[in-house]
Amino acid sequence: DEELERAAFLKIVRAMRDYASDAAREVHRWERNYERLPENHRALLSHHVAKHDDAYRCVKRNDDFFKEMLSSFTGDDVPPHLRVPPPGEMAHEPVAPSDAVKVLYVLKNLARDWSAEAADERLQSHGPILAELERRLKAVPGRPPPRVMVPGAGLGRLVLECARRGWESEGNEYSYYMLLTSSFILNHATKAEQFTIHPWMHTNNNHLSDANQLRGVKVPDVPACDAGVPPGCMGMCAGDFVEVYGAAENAGRWDAVATCFFIDTAHNVIEYLEIISRCLKPGAVWVNFGPLLYHWADADGYLSADEMSVEMSLEDVERVADAVGLDVVKKEMRESKYTGDKMSMCQTVYECAF
Amino acid sequence: DEELERAAFLKIVRAMRDYASDAAREVHRWERNYERLPENHRALLSHHVAKHDDAYRCVKRNDDFFKEMLSSFTGDDVPPHLRVPPPGEMAHEPVAPSDAVKVLYVLKNLARDWSAEAADERLQSHGPILAELERRLKAVPGRPPPRVMVPGAGLGRLVLECARRGWESEGNEYSYYMLLTSSFILNHATKAEQFTIHPWMHTNNNHLSDANQLRGVKVPDVPACDAGVPPGCMGMCAGDFVEVYGAAENAGRWDAVATCFFIDTAHNVIEYLEIISRCLKPGAVWVNFGPLLYHWADADGYLSADEMSVEMSLEDVERVADAVGLDVVKKEMRESKYTGDKMSMCQTVYECAF
Repeated sequence: DEELERAAFLKIVRAMRDYASDAAREVHRWERNYERLPENHRALLSHHVAKHDDAYRCVKRNDDFFKEMLSSFTGDDVPPHLRVPPPGEMAHEPVAPSDAVKVLYVLKNLARDWSAEAADERLQSHGPILAELERRLKAVPGRPPPRVMVPGAGLGRLVLECARRGWESEGNEYSYYMLLTSSFILNHATKAEQFTIHPWMHTNNNHLSDANQLRGVKVPDVPACDAGVPPGCMGMCAGDFVEVYGAAENAGRWDAVATCFFIDTAHNVIEYLEIISRCLKPGAVWVNFGPLLYHWADADGYLSADEMSVEMSLEDVERVADAVGLDVVKKEMRESKYTGDKMSMCQTVYECAF
Repeated sequence: DEELERAAFLKIVRAMRDYASDAAREVHRWERNYERLPENHRALLSHHVAKHDDAYRCVKRNDDFFKEMLSSFTGDDVPPHLRVPPPGEMAHEPVAPSDAVKVLYVLKNLARDWSAEAADERLQSHGPILAELERRLKAVPGRPPPRVMVPGAGLGRLVLECARRGWESEGNEYSYYMLLTSSFILNHATKAEQFTIHPWMHTNNNHLSDANQLRGVKVPDVPACDAGVPPGCMGMCAGDFVEVYGAAENAGRWDAVATCFFIDTAHNVIEYLEIISRCLKPGAVWVNFGPLLYHWADADGYLSADEMSVEMSLEDVERVADAVGLDVVKKEMRESKYTGDKMSMCQTVYECAF
């Protein structure tokens, strides 16, 4: 089991190490297509020659970011199972296209969680969650601060936002792509806009201009160390949500659970709702925001196996929530973007345990 | 070449004939996942047993639609290359998942182009196109009506809307999925809401309720024969846009070209713009609406071959349009849905040849 974990970790390290060659392959394709054009068409797009060079430079800068990130996990202070081996010590295995895509997704998530330009996008989803939590969680002097759990924490921005409001916040995340990156950005970014990445360069689709496509995005807008988080108020917990929070010691331990684009990642959303309900103290609140784009619904298709996947409508989610002891006390529908993609349905459901 | 065409046609007939078994496979998956649930979870979703039965009935009704449609192409009056052979005469070959998906797309497009409930969605994209054409195309008594070309006509609704405004309208379409379906709905639907289809049932994602997911959609909202189209005002032309309209006889023949979610289907969008420019009379207008989600950009990935694909930003599209003799005279950005999916960028560009 530990060996499998380590293999999964190394697969992700490999995908991040191979980022530059995977991304450059796409720019090669642009060049190849440019070369195939008749001469009069090439003349109309002669500025694309410079665009391709710029794109290779963007790939290089993204690659520099991944290199710096991975090198921060090489020291003796890093737990052995998370230690990144030197490139020479890793067997070379090809990176699956589905893994290469996830590396690009890391860049988009960095922009979403940690850039100034995505502040509006975060306001759409984090905004209502934080506003509702602020209404319901009151710190009482002399008592420990309210405890908030954030499953599917991704790159940790929502956890930080909870912590800077004085709540003791714990993020949970399963993906090593996210865990490595959130650990790096939370612990190794010491000044604002320390890193420049180019998350939007990898496709030619739907750009207003080449400059737009190749633009650099600076992260983080605020380094975690400057965010005014009280000491000990923020933590990230690696692992599978069901395993970690299904355990008895988490029962009745939380004043709030905040799920943002999370519940549709379940194999069995009923199990998620049961665990959330069990984790909450009496009268505690679950705040949910996100679509119902069930992650495992396509397992027959692009995913590898016929994995268990229970999918249900929003009406059913509410019915099940009620049955497992979560009362729906507030419900609104709102639109929200996520890493620039629009979702076809987004909802805010505020529910409360009794 | 004719043999290849016939093979392509038969492949689509086969995909439509296999619709019921392909779609039922997805409902089987729902059942399998339901059966895997622990008993207390099944109890919470006991209404899903009836949902699965309903879903099979929806598949059956969609299948009935396809059967009726295919049977309308069996008579001696059907041109031989478009004649649908009896099932027994066709070799059984497996349908590729990418073709099975296109059959579902036909159902969604029927809802988009021909249902009352999609009127709002059509208003978002057809609306600005028709409004601009109405401003620019004036019928002059005693002269032939203005001639409008609609490339990528899909299921023909925009062509019909142009024709009912008194313009002589020609749609162009390449895909046999669309050609068979548009021919059927335009020529065989004789009364409003003659057919009921269930286009939204094939995925469990993002539904407010099961009833919503399984709902029937009635088509057409208006049968073409009742739309008040003057005789001879509307035609559909099958074939590749470049081959058909690149031909000399189309030069200077059109008063307007209306492209809606079309230009990003090009292998080489420069070629499309050149042909549009050449087809227009002096002073005639090109009205464009749609994103730049280049259809062939992923050819390295899910498409079969490394097909030519030239992709450019909106800025470049405008630059190239100008270079080939199309003046940008008006430009607006608007949001629009397409078959219920939101597109990440949509633009309206009104251009005019001189």
